[in-house]
Amino acid sequence: MIVVMKIGAPEAEITRLTEEFSSWNLNSEKIVGKHKVVIGLVGDTVDMDPLQIQESSPWIEQVLRVEKPYKRTSREYRHGEASEVIVPTPNGAVAFGEHHPLVVVAGPCSVENEAMIVETARRVKAAGAQFLRGGAFKPRTSPYAFQGHGESALGLLAAAREATGLGIITELMDAADLEIVGEVADVIQIGARNMHNFSLLKKVGAQDKPIVLKRGMSATIEEWLMAAEYLLAAGNPNVILCERGIRTFDNKYARNTLDLSVIPVLRSLTHLPIMIDPSHGTGRSEYVPSMAMAAIAAGTDSLMIEVHPNPKKALSDGPQSLTPERFDRLMQELSVIGKATGRWFAEPATVGV
Amino acid sequence: MIVVMKIGAPEAEITRLTEEFSSWNLNSEKIVGKHKVVIGLVGDTVDMDPLQIQESSPWIEQVLRVEKPYKRTSREYRHGEASEVIVPTPNGAVAFGEHHPLVVVAGPCSVENEAMIVETARRVKAAGAQFLRGGAFKPRTSPYAFQGHGESALGLLAAAREATGLGIITELMDAADLEIVGEVADVIQIGARNMHNFSLLKKVGAQDKPIVLKRGMSATIEEWLMAAEYLLAAGNPNVILCERGIRTFDNKYARNTLDLSVIPVLRSLTHLPIMIDPSHGTGRSEYVPSMAMAAIAAGTDSLMIEVHPNPKKALSDGPQSLTPERFDRLMQELSVIGKATGRWFAEPATVGV
Amino acid sequence: MIVVMKIGAPEAEITRLTEEFSSWNLNSEKIVGKHKVVIGLVGDTVDMDPLQIQESSPWIEQVLRVEKPYKRTSREYRHGEASEVIVPTPNGAVAFGEHHPLVVVAGPCSVENEAMIVETARRVKAAGAQFLRGGAFKPRTSPYAFQGHGESALGLLAAAREATGLGIITELMDAADLEIVGEVADVIQIGARNMHNFSLLKKVGAQDKPIVLKRGMSATIEEWLMAAEYLLAAGNPNVILCERGIRTFDNKYARNTLDLSVIPVLRSLTHLPIMIDPSHGTGRSEYVPSMAMAAIAAGTDSLMIEVHPNPKKALSDGPQSLTPERFDRLMQELSVIGKATGRWFAEPATVGV
Amino acid sequence: MIVVMKIGAPEAEITRLTEEFSSWNLNSEKIVGKHKVVIGLVGDTVDMDPLQIQESSPWIEQVLRVEKPYKRTSREYRHGEASEVIVPTPNGAVAFGEHHPLVVVAGPCSVENEAMIVETARRVKAAGAQFLRGGAFKPRTSPYAFQGHGESALGLLAAAREATGLGIITELMDAADLEIVGEVADVIQIGARNMHNFSLLKKVGAQDKPIVLKRGMSATIEEWLMAAEYLLAAGNPNVILCERGIRTFDNKYARNTLDLSVIPVLRSLTHLPIMIDPSHGTGRSEYVPSMAMAAIAAGTDSLMIEVHPNPKKALSDGPQSLTPERFDRLMQELSVIGKATGRWFAEPATVGV
Repeated sequence: MIVVMKIGAPEAEITRLTEEFSSWNLNSEKIVGKHKVVIGLVGDTVDMDPLQIQESSPWIEQVLRVEKPYKRTSREYRHGEASEVIVPTPNGAVAFGEHHPLVVVAGPCSVENEAMIVETARRVKAAGAQFLRGGAFKPRTSPYAFQGHGESALGLLAAAREATGLGIITELMDAADLEIVGEVADVIQIGARNMHNFSLLKKVGAQDKPIVLKRGMSATIEEWLMAAEYLLAAGNPNVILCERGIRTFDNKYARNTLDLSVIPVLRSLTHLPIMIDPSHGTGRSEYVPSMAMAAIAAGTDSLMIEVHPNPKKALSDGPQSLTPERFDRLMQELSVIGKATGRWFAEPATVGV
Repeated sequence: MIVVMKIGAPEAEITRLTEEFSSWNLNSEKIVGKHKVVIGLVGDTVDMDPLQIQESSPWIEQVLRVEKPYKRTSREYRHGEASEVIVPTPNGAVAFGEHHPLVVVAGPCSVENEAMIVETARRVKAAGAQFLRGGAFKPRTSPYAFQGHGESALGLLAAAREATGLGIITELMDAADLEIVGEVADVIQIGARNMHNFSLLKKVGAQDKPIVLKRGMSATIEEWLMAAEYLLAAGNPNVILCERGIRTFDNKYARNTLDLSVIPVLRSLTHLPIMIDPSHGTGRSEYVPSMAMAAIAAGTDSLMIEVHPNPKKALSDGPQSLTPERFDRLMQELSVIGKATGRWFAEPATVGV
Repeated sequence: MIVVMKIGAPEAEITRLTEEFSSWNLNSEKIVGKHKVVIGLVGDTVDMDPLQIQESSPWIEQVLRVEKPYKRTSREYRHGEASEVIVPTPNGAVAFGEHHPLVVVAGPCSVENEAMIVETARRVKAAGAQFLRGGAFKPRTSPYAFQGHGESALGLLAAAREATGLGIITELMDAADLEIVGEVADVIQIGARNMHNFSLLKKVGAQDKPIVLKRGMSATIEEWLMAAEYLLAAGNPNVILCERGIRTFDNKYARNTLDLSVIPVLRSLTHLPIMIDPSHGTGRSEYVPSMAMAAIAAGTDSLMIEVHPNPKKALSDGPQSLTPERFDRLMQELSVIGKATGRWFAEPATVGV
Repeated sequence: MIVVMKIGAPEAEITRLTEEFSSWNLNSEKIVGKHKVVIGLVGDTVDMDPLQIQESSPWIEQVLRVEKPYKRTSREYRHGEASEVIVPTPNGAVAFGEHHPLVVVAGPCSVENEAMIVETARRVKAAGAQFLRGGAFKPRTSPYAFQGHGESALGLLAAAREATGLGIITELMDAADLEIVGEVADVIQIGARNMHNFSLLKKVGAQDKPIVLKRGMSATIEEWLMAAEYLLAAGNPNVILCERGIRTFDNKYARNTLDLSVIPVLRSLTHLPIMIDPSHGTGRSEYVPSMAMAAIAAGTDSLMIEVHPNPKKALSDGPQSLTPERFDRLMQELSVIGKATGRWFAEPATVGV
């Protein structure tokens, strides 16, 4: 921590502060500048709150943090190495990570019935996806909107898994459902609206299934990494960070602003694998292919794309879903970029475990 | 709903759409404009998603919602009348609402020990507060930061309630704690980070204690009212809306941007009482008095202000807490405005029940 | 400036950097922390760009600024004293500042014809305003919208000034119009869209008339003060800062988000007087009174309020204009708060010069 | 325009409104819904302001625009066809547009001296760029920062043009400099801070050189297209839209948030060519390659990239500049994607004119 004193701070106050910091086991190193005195605090400051330190004296102008507030999620924690998240699925283990081919997750926003989910699973598998996404519990802005078929939908996801061998990714909204979701899901998704639900993070971090952690609508990158830190601190290192669009001043043409610049930023800050969801990120199916192409070119490790056999009739998020036909074509388009950048899977698409 | 067709939309497509809408029990009324055809949908469209309708045809340019998506929280629902939330406390019932005096809630960010919470309660009561706030469970960005003393802190709040007769407002983060929180709290607070935690909203809406619903950091007013709608739809009409600062592009000098303009906007849209929290809203104790003054002048029904006997030593949020002395002075300053605008309490401060 | 080195930065690199900084006439003071080395740069660093320093070595993690980037606008520049801007008007000199009564500026968005502007001037003067606002040149989002009556409108403002003795505030959009605007205006307004038009700032800062500088739609407080610094550095110390609403994620119910929290923040950072424009700040006349009340309670030095004799027929911004009758009533409401806080003018409303 | 009446609006008021609209040459078509009456206005409503209509009656709840507010920039204006902007340069004419290869613009933030600008021009030309960028006039947040070498820098750009045959793109900040900038520039850039400087837009739109219009820091896509409309309405159809990063709630790791999602959105709304500036968009040279790759994969028509022979010593924006060596490598990486998507230039890179 760096403590910047106001102009004219009395020498006696600086001495008093130094003694106070000393009582917190922090050494103070003083720099006397042209106008101001700056105190560098040496010691274990990672968990300290800069605002807290600021309260120590009315003569403190500001307190600047030097240490990053996250540890386990930081790239330095693994000495600069990327981590990989390996997920066993009926078709074999699939690895997410910087040194692995792109992993594609596809499927409908919500699970509607067995025919549609099994059909969708077959289609996205045929096109090259390794995971099926599908919501059983849906966070909806309106209490009157369709809230997902809940537990019964979990059974349908299990059926689709059995029929195709695809891994299943589905959202957990309520810690009370953790067990039943964990029985079906190969990867548990924490949605954007729950990124700051710390109670849920602690509980899901304490179980073993890999986790996709979506970025909150207005979460800074640092807050997002701190949410991941909750998961890692609770014992689960298998976390994938999923960008799904942020909230900005303009949502007239796209529902959110997909922030693809997180790809190089996250790569430099954390070892965790990166996923991009251009479907929620734009909210319009016509913009999804362009953004999926951009994401793979920018170096994402994974894509999550909504596919629905009949978007017009979808119970939720139809406007952002691709038809299976459009998804087939997109996968071909993506393969061109993926091969050019060395991130397309060779056959077979899974790693041996 | 208003469906705007693209320029050149074929007559046959418009006919087809009209039939499709008819199968959804919606009548279509067509307006042929200079360049475009517009279809007005008449029927029960409140719960429909405009994006969903848009998917019905590639010839649809946009779909505009005419109905507000919230019902029970709307001012129209009560035919323009304000509602009041009456909270029984040991000192008598306190009413929150447009036609009642300002209600002041004060206390520390988190409950630290019995001496500090009882002392704070005594001081804020003496200054004129009717409720004590204090966190037992604290949402913290870092998993390594102090998370609140939890259940034991609830006991301390009960002691402070007993000692002073003040009503207690404390935050619920996890539905699993609903029962123990409900035993102590006179009003249950849902924090900004959980405004979109719909599972929690459903459960807290299904119990009887009044609820303070804080606005999410980047929640639109409409989303905030929809979150309140979850509570009302679940059966609890006693909801107070609390603004606590939003996230904008500038947080260098204040932690959040306190959005006081919600006061007249909410007044026109909803019948629910309004609370302003200038402590979280600015994050700096030196800005709190000015914003509290502004809030009462703008017409708030209630204020929530952080007070700590020794902010420098606070375990959380010290920098935004007033000392009891500063709070005493603020209450006097507020009384000047409150009397001028007819919102200051006469003795006694409580309503008969 | 504080230079934070990455973990593991080699000693030799730190030595090399120290020499490089020395060649820039900066002394380096090194603090060896638990994980990282931090270098404090002592010397004339105010005008340096932290990003520039960062480029000096790939081993630099971040560079933190300790000095504020603005000088003449800072409160310290006047040793903590507020400045006052005194504007001569036909009715006498009017002073804007922390230690003066509230100054009210009122009038229509744009000058439409002589009858309406003179009539409006008479009405707002009678209600207690000291300045008439009115646009001759209007920044409009659409090239097809009414752009103001230009030079001829300036003549009408002069007529209103003559008829009432009120000071005139009008916007300058183009440096080419500086002379003709300066002939009529007692205070020149720089609009939000030109806050970052540095060419214009330099030219208007080089003339003598006082200036109202509106905050850019998404300008941080620091950028706003830097724009004021352009004016002061060009030689004109008579600058009033006007908040007019910022751009956030929600503009459904209000056109902008009026940021009243700038009042205490600016008070602590700068000596310049503060003006609040609740008309542009909300964009809806029905929200203006509540926000004007809040502004005076929070301590603003001045208010700018749109008044139009017939808002329905206004050529621009009708929806945010008060009628003269509503403005009369608002002035009475404001006087209650103003008297309570000691900021209401006694008769006469002007200072002797 | 669609006028939505409040619940309970009296029949007589609706009749009165209909008559008022009729006096504005607008036909009213009434739709009687379940709760509300909606009036569709048929006629020439493009230039009308919805807020203005709203003022016509207190019984109007909202007014919804059906027409887009921009005409000449809309894709419909060219019946769905993309436009191309052809720029003559000494090396031949270069075409920007959807059906042309990617055009690369490169060079330093500001022109420092002849040796550096000619050297940079040679290097970026050798790597495949067709235009040299370089600032003579620089918009700087601080009045004390380097403001560009001004007119003398224009002479240096002319020398670089002569030496290499590259086209020149440079920023115009002040209409007073239009002539001297126009003598050297092949394309005139309007910077983000001047996107809303309508006086400047009118003047630059009235001359013949092609224009790059950067998006304002917090300009919506619609506002950006309206700014372009100013240029087209003033007579200049040769406009290229350049995204350079927007302002959001997070700027800790990147200076702005590069909004790549504008690529598919602009493609659907306008016929104008698209340029992406990942250098300003991220503010960090290490993130530029990833975002440039993403931009070409997403379908941009052009890239603007900062290159400086010695970024550490740059007078401005060093931290976001690539070295010539890194730029060489980036062009090779881009060519892989460009060839895969059919947007890379074959030899020769120019079109015949």
